[in-house]
Amino acid sequence: MSILRGVVPPVLTPFHADGSLDLASLDSLVEHLIGGGVHGLFVLGSSGQVAYLTDAERDTVVERVIATAAGRVPVMVGTPDLTARRVLDHARRAQALGASAVVVTAPLYALNNSAEIADHFRLVAAGLDIPVIAYDVPVRGPAKLGRDMLVQLGREGVIAGVKDSSGDDVAFRRLVDANRAAGSPLSVSTGHEVMCDGMFLLGADGCVPGLANVDPAGYVRLFEAAERGDWEAARAEQDRINRLFEIAFVPQGRSGDAGGIGAFKAACAALGVIASGTMPAPIEALSAEEVADVEAIVREAGLLR
Amino acid sequence: MSILRGVVPPVLTPFHADGSLDLASLDSLVEHLIGGGVHGLFVLGSSGQVAYLTDAERDTVVERVIATAAGRVPVMVGTPDLTARRVLDHARRAQALGASAVVVTAPLYALNNSAEIADHFRLVAAGLDIPVIAYDVPVRGPAKLGRDMLVQLGREGVIAGVKDSSGDDVAFRRLVDANRAAGSPLSVSTGHEVMCDGMFLLGADGCVPGLANVDPAGYVRLFEAAERGDWEAARAEQDRINRLFEIAFVPQGRSGDAGGIGAFKAACAALGVIASGTMPAPIEALSAEEVADVEAIVREAGLLR
Amino acid sequence: MSILRGVVPPVLTPFHADGSLDLASLDSLVEHLIGGGVHGLFVLGSSGQVAYLTDAERDTVVERVIATAAGRVPVMVGTPDLTARRVLDHARRAQALGASAVVVTAPLYALNNSAEIADHFRLVAAGLDIPVIAYDVPVRGPAKLGRDMLVQLGREGVIAGVKDSSGDDVAFRRLVDANRAAGSPLSVSTGHEVMCDGMFLLGADGCVPGLANVDPAGYVRLFEAAERGDWEAARAEQDRINRLFEIAFVPQGRSGDAGGIGAFKAACAALGVIASGTMPAPIEALSAEEVADVEAIVREAGLLR
Amino acid sequence: MSILRGVVPPVLTPFHADGSLDLASLDSLVEHLIGGGVHGLFVLGSSGQVAYLTDAERDTVVERVIATAAGRVPVMVGTPDLTARRVLDHARRAQALGASAVVVTAPLYALNNSAEIADHFRLVAAGLDIPVIAYDVPVRGPAKLGRDMLVQLGREGVIAGVKDSSGDDVAFRRLVDANRAAGSPLSVSTGHEVMCDGMFLLGADGCVPGLANVDPAGYVRLFEAAERGDWEAARAEQDRINRLFEIAFVPQGRSGDAGGIGAFKAACAALGVIASGTMPAPIEALSAEEVADVEAIVREAGLLR
Repeated sequence: MSILRGVVPPVLTPFHADGSLDLASLDSLVEHLIGGGVHGLFVLGSSGQVAYLTDAERDTVVERVIATAAGRVPVMVGTPDLTARRVLDHARRAQALGASAVVVTAPLYALNNSAEIADHFRLVAAGLDIPVIAYDVPVRGPAKLGRDMLVQLGREGVIAGVKDSSGDDVAFRRLVDANRAAGSPLSVSTGHEVMCDGMFLLGADGCVPGLANVDPAGYVRLFEAAERGDWEAARAEQDRINRLFEIAFVPQGRSGDAGGIGAFKAACAALGVIASGTMPAPIEALSAEEVADVEAIVREAGLLR
Repeated sequence: MSILRGVVPPVLTPFHADGSLDLASLDSLVEHLIGGGVHGLFVLGSSGQVAYLTDAERDTVVERVIATAAGRVPVMVGTPDLTARRVLDHARRAQALGASAVVVTAPLYALNNSAEIADHFRLVAAGLDIPVIAYDVPVRGPAKLGRDMLVQLGREGVIAGVKDSSGDDVAFRRLVDANRAAGSPLSVSTGHEVMCDGMFLLGADGCVPGLANVDPAGYVRLFEAAERGDWEAARAEQDRINRLFEIAFVPQGRSGDAGGIGAFKAACAALGVIASGTMPAPIEALSAEEVADVEAIVREAGLLR
Repeated sequence: MSILRGVVPPVLTPFHADGSLDLASLDSLVEHLIGGGVHGLFVLGSSGQVAYLTDAERDTVVERVIATAAGRVPVMVGTPDLTARRVLDHARRAQALGASAVVVTAPLYALNNSAEIADHFRLVAAGLDIPVIAYDVPVRGPAKLGRDMLVQLGREGVIAGVKDSSGDDVAFRRLVDANRAAGSPLSVSTGHEVMCDGMFLLGADGCVPGLANVDPAGYVRLFEAAERGDWEAARAEQDRINRLFEIAFVPQGRSGDAGGIGAFKAACAALGVIASGTMPAPIEALSAEEVADVEAIVREAGLLR
Repeated sequence: MSILRGVVPPVLTPFHADGSLDLASLDSLVEHLIGGGVHGLFVLGSSGQVAYLTDAERDTVVERVIATAAGRVPVMVGTPDLTARRVLDHARRAQALGASAVVVTAPLYALNNSAEIADHFRLVAAGLDIPVIAYDVPVRGPAKLGRDMLVQLGREGVIAGVKDSSGDDVAFRRLVDANRAAGSPLSVSTGHEVMCDGMFLLGADGCVPGLANVDPAGYVRLFEAAERGDWEAARAEQDRINRLFEIAFVPQGRSGDAGGIGAFKAACAALGVIASGTMPAPIEALSAEEVADVEAIVREAGLLR
């Protein structure tokens, strides 16, 4: 069974007003997601604002989510750091805490070519007993992960899957095709939350949509429609979800880390899933007016009465 | 006196063949640089391959260079990490080890706007007693640091200087002018190793040239010519240095972290300053043929007999 | 009926070895396309190498294709030039020659903002009696056409459709959704030749695939499967087509104008549809070895015996 | 003598309110520039808003400026169009009208590699009797012109000079050095109006500053100071000019074609050199408030009483 099969939300990290982790809200969010039928959880991703956490906070989040999930779904853990030995330090701690897999980006700050990036993954995987998933997120690092390199790493058993947040659908489809031709060593998943129907049609195993924090059940219905080949239903569900996704465009003139995630948090707070939409310093939460606009969209989508 | 005045090389980090730090070579390199007349040292910069070091190795480098410098020149320390609290952890360790200043980039992996980046620097500076120098290196992170933000942070006393490795000379000149108009709260330094004459002419306080690891005395002569207003001599020295800089173009088809730094290391090894041109995994050192081409250029420049 | 409905290939422009237009091959290609069941023709697009033609050659191509099509399918004409008055000159000539519509890019060489680009389209449309289709091809010009601007221009009756070659599928889907919400003033078509199944699923009216010069009937089958809601058949056809599309990756290290179009021409020549794969100066045609590799893929795809 | 030696302003193109060419203002501007001591004129450049002119208007501008200059300074003519044969058509008309040289960009809209771009210049030059100057302006086209290609074309006699508006000073310096090493086949000129002192120091033959439309005499003083090796005077003049250049930053939130050129026109109108700051459709002229801010800076610079 593909490790990235189905809906695997990148779990938001709730904060108290004083900047500390809001673990009660994190518990509630995890129950909301599992209750919605998701197939796995991805913690310490970009949507989880991992960049703003200390190592101790990273460990606390991992420990808590694994405890709450209690084996009901696998928990995958992000490990962003500059280069392989630093990443491996995070990955080993996650493994010790019970993670099902780690999600690893290309090196950050470093300027590497494709051969060096492949070795980066090899260095990380060689030090672990759990699967490594490659995380393709070029907007946050210098490098797009190449198709041939990924399939080769899959063949070698270095990586077990790819989470694609590159926004390059042609590259994604060529990856899916090349992976299939190679005997499907990789599980392939898309972060394109507004295109999951099309991505399932072309052969994606799963999706990692930030918006699934707000509406996990919707994404699960979409996935199930795709599983049974009912593409019109999948598309209708995706279209409904996309109207909800407009919450991400409510905050205008914000930074990349403030707008979409701020809106997802505001929506979850409006639904009572987490206590507040607090953001980590130096990012400001949405304004009252923006929150009202988000809530209007959530209400229109039928999630809020 | 400007903290970034004069020639402040970004110190290379030598390695043994087994990947461990070559501290004897580091000592030798520091003596080479101080002997060449440099005005300060910048350790754990991009040229120092800081991305490839663990925290323990970072501390070892800082401790060793400060011990070897023994107060003859100030030692500035790079602190790259994802966001402010993580950066601050590195910066405090550097401060405790005796660093004269820390050199801080915009957040990495995070996607912040200008206001958030300004707060990032405020959060770091608030936790330190030593000066903070802003490091503008957009090729390694998502953000170019804006002129108005930098001058404002200077006025607030948050940052004491700017090391500009952006390659945007117009922006640099406008920064120099705006800083002067504001009463020069900032010390401003360029990483443009082939343009130092022009940068001194327009008002740069200093330079941070990776190539100065190879030829510190040449950059010192260039700076001194500029200091006394002998611009023809400065230009002639720069032109001579630029022919030496062609070593950085010897390695073709290499990654950004492999070519230039690999050539600087090969040249230092050829000069006997460090034991070898070893690079940290997963980067490969220059080939024997590339090393020979580097040596030919170093010889032609009159540094090697 | 949507003006961009169905399969509308961007017609290749065949050349003789001396650089002159090969009109007999152009006739043959048009018959091949119409015989394959395509719903319209788009001449003087990027695949038609319009950039390399003089005004007189542009007119000759338009005249000849309209004569050969003889009303069986509509013929749309590209009009790239720097700004509105220059574009309008081309567009009026196309109108006079019987074009069904013109396909207009954002200004070239100019550096305009969204309001200026909208006015650019208004200036062009005001001088014409035939519909204007906006051509979103940011790789060849500085500007991505914004969703809100396009829908607004549709509402005003300035443009009748959008040919999207931006490769930004999220933007395309948001355009499709916003257009539908506005009462569908626009016909929307994708240039993403390897993703047509997914684009039809999400609501595209048609596609403009360069590869359809080689296999028009395949794209027509794909479109018809999508029309009747048989998404598995659409996907299977797209997957088959995508294996054929690998011809575009045969030429390595070529320019953007040499590789893909060179491969399409080589394949059409192999099929006997055009006389040769000649390219306009200064572009070189594929090498004999590359042609052989293209032919092998075409043969494997079952198009060549 | 270098064809690009000294100060060669890119001449603004004045318009009447109805969009037609304001030739009386053009005459006045040419007299202002020649009176200021400039060494040549460059018409139909980006600052001349060539993109917005028809072919007939291009010819009118060329004819008029050559007539007004009356042999006092050479007149160079820009010829932007998509590819070589189209460029050559403009270039031949300019030659027939008496142009001293043509200024040719890389292909537009086309996607060519370095070898194809080199052939593009060869195709243009082969059809002309007057010198070709390569215009490196990557912000308006897809391609940065490579150093080795430019020097090679200089050696072949294909091009006589390079006007560099790339903003890449390291590349410019390496071009200057490589050109000198090759025996200086090329005349090299910078479009970096705020860095001319440094560019002259490193060996530029001349400059092509848009701001020289406003203050030609200032740039001439700067050049003359550099010629006699008085670098402190050159720098002081450049610093003074740079305070004047802040007019280009007065218009905020404008397009690339609206802000700087709009400010240059507003300043020339304030000085009485041209009748108005009218811009070609669809670009709007500066607002009254912006014009007032521009005038305040011009007054502070001592150009306006």
